Amino acid sequence: MNPQRILVVGSVALDTIRTPYGEVTEALGGSASYFSCSASHFAPVSVVAVVGEDFPDTHRQTFTGRGIDLSGLETARGRTFRWRGEYMAELGHAHTLETQLNVFAEFHPKLTDTHRRIPYVFLANIDPELQLEVLAQMRRPRLVLSDTMNYWIARKPDRVLEVLRRVDVALLNEEEARALAGETHLTRAAESLLAAGAHAVIIKKGEHGALYHSHDERFLTPAYPVRALADPTGAGDSFAGGFMGLLARLDRADGGALRQAMACGTAMASMAIEAFSPVRLVECSGAEIEGRVRELHGLVHYDLFKMFD
Amino acid sequence: MNPQRILVVGSVALDTIRTPYGEVTEALGGSASYFSCSASHFAPVSVVAVVGEDFPDTHRQTFTGRGIDLSGLETARGRTFRWRGEYMAELGHAHTLETQLNVFAEFHPKLTDTHRRIPYVFLANIDPELQLEVLAQMRRPRLVLSDTMNYWIARKPDRVLEVLRRVDVALLNEEEARALAGETHLTRAAESLLAAGAHAVIIKKGEHGALYHSHDERFLTPAYPVRALADPTGAGDSFAGGFMGLLARLDRADGGALRQAMACGTAMASMAIEAFSPVRLVECSGAEIEGRVRELHGLVHYDLFKMFD
Repeated sequence: MNPQRILVVGSVALDTIRTPYGEVTEALGGSASYFSCSASHFAPVSVVAVVGEDFPDTHRQTFTGRGIDLSGLETARGRTFRWRGEYMAELGHAHTLETQLNVFAEFHPKLTDTHRRIPYVFLANIDPELQLEVLAQMRRPRLVLSDTMNYWIARKPDRVLEVLRRVDVALLNEEEARALAGETHLTRAAESLLAAGAHAVIIKKGEHGALYHSHDERFLTPAYPVRALADPTGAGDSFAGGFMGLLARLDRADGGALRQAMACGTAMASMAIEAFSPVRLVECSGAEIEGRVRELHGLVHYDLFKMFD
Repeated sequence: MNPQRILVVGSVALDTIRTPYGEVTEALGGSASYFSCSASHFAPVSVVAVVGEDFPDTHRQTFTGRGIDLSGLETARGRTFRWRGEYMAELGHAHTLETQLNVFAEFHPKLTDTHRRIPYVFLANIDPELQLEVLAQMRRPRLVLSDTMNYWIARKPDRVLEVLRRVDVALLNEEEARALAGETHLTRAAESLLAAGAHAVIIKKGEHGALYHSHDERFLTPAYPVRALADPTGAGDSFAGGFMGLLARLDRADGGALRQAMACGTAMASMAIEAFSPVRLVECSGAEIEGRVRELHGLVHYDLFKMFD
């Protein structure tokens, strides 16, 4: 195995979160944090993001403890991006209580020459214009994965679609896929996004798993049946980390790799939501990840036999 | 292969249904109709139900055309059970516009000695007291599957639980499982039903597939991605028909058989909802069913490989 490096461009934040199972104050958060902690189990990761002068050293050590390259983590004048949110009993949606963009408001990803040559790229949920800026700077990456959110779909649908056309795989959740495709039925929504020029989409359905759709492959992974749910924040980015992590580790994106990568994403998402902040993502072992991927396989696997003559 | 006979006790009805995709008037409906048309592709089926003197011969021919034994279909004085319902755009739930129980109001299943010796039994959604009456009449059946509905869970939860304890596998949809277990989280709801004495439960999640839970086995099947949805009526009973159909066809209920039986159930549910009434269930071929089971297998199958040392 010859794991390839992964570049993630996204947010590093300080999250203050309350769920029915507890709360945290100014914990490490942000899409790039969840993604990189997750992906670092599979392959080396470089982060491009911005923090303020107040970003705690302990959080920096969380990244470096996992071997994550922070040479692209800019420290700008001012305060770090902060998000305050709350989840109710159903845990489906976060209620945002406060967003302070702070240094993130002026963020324009600046890539060094080394960053531009990284072969695997995750464009986390940021303004699609910034995602396109990053893509324009990259030197023939081997595989690019993107994420987005309803906020951008509502405001810049054409730019979001432009990103979809330019990346290899686009991650969306159910509501985002429906909103962007203008189609309620998920299979039809996925097909309509492919018809609009996307190469492949992954539709995340929360507790109902995730769906991979391309012109050649259609594949479904159930969610891992988590018992000790603590905080759903970061599930999607952790999924992305496991998914892209395995592809970069194998340096392959054929059907077999993609299918197991979906299970890796699912396993990492399940780790993320068992604790606040990326705590479980940081501490879990390869054996634990492997165990969950094996459990997911057992949950759907059967030997097909012929029934009718 | 030595397919075993299946007994179904349930309703035969005349359905008047409107969906966004069309409507039918006094079409063949009822749980025993969908179940038996579905299961008849796999094994011989006997129906125990009641109709009124107005029950059309053409509907009777639908059953006999599929080789279904109607010796247990009683013709009572009066009118056949009628249901009138409507589905809105989301197709999730039927809105009942009118229910005329008619002859079904006084239905007490009377089994002949031949019926009592049938080894595979489906207790469709009827009063749990009647389900227990049928069970008391059976002579050591090999496998009993039950269904229920929220109406009975709300009114006779203890009787519904008693049925669950006496059958081999209990079918419930998501809301029914949550209501009966008093638990929102589906994995925990399934575990709580097993703790209450159920041997195995199948939780039907509509477009999100179905989950099998027993003490030894946990298994998930995605829904078949239907494109030409016409009418969701009967999906659950058609699932039951495919599931029990395969087990009776193989006369086996080990893990391998159960897992493929879940896929058979899913395939038959997908046939049912592509047309009004059991029309597609009646006309589909073994090759078509086999094709869908193969597609479902392809949707989740992958070869597991080791990732970490």
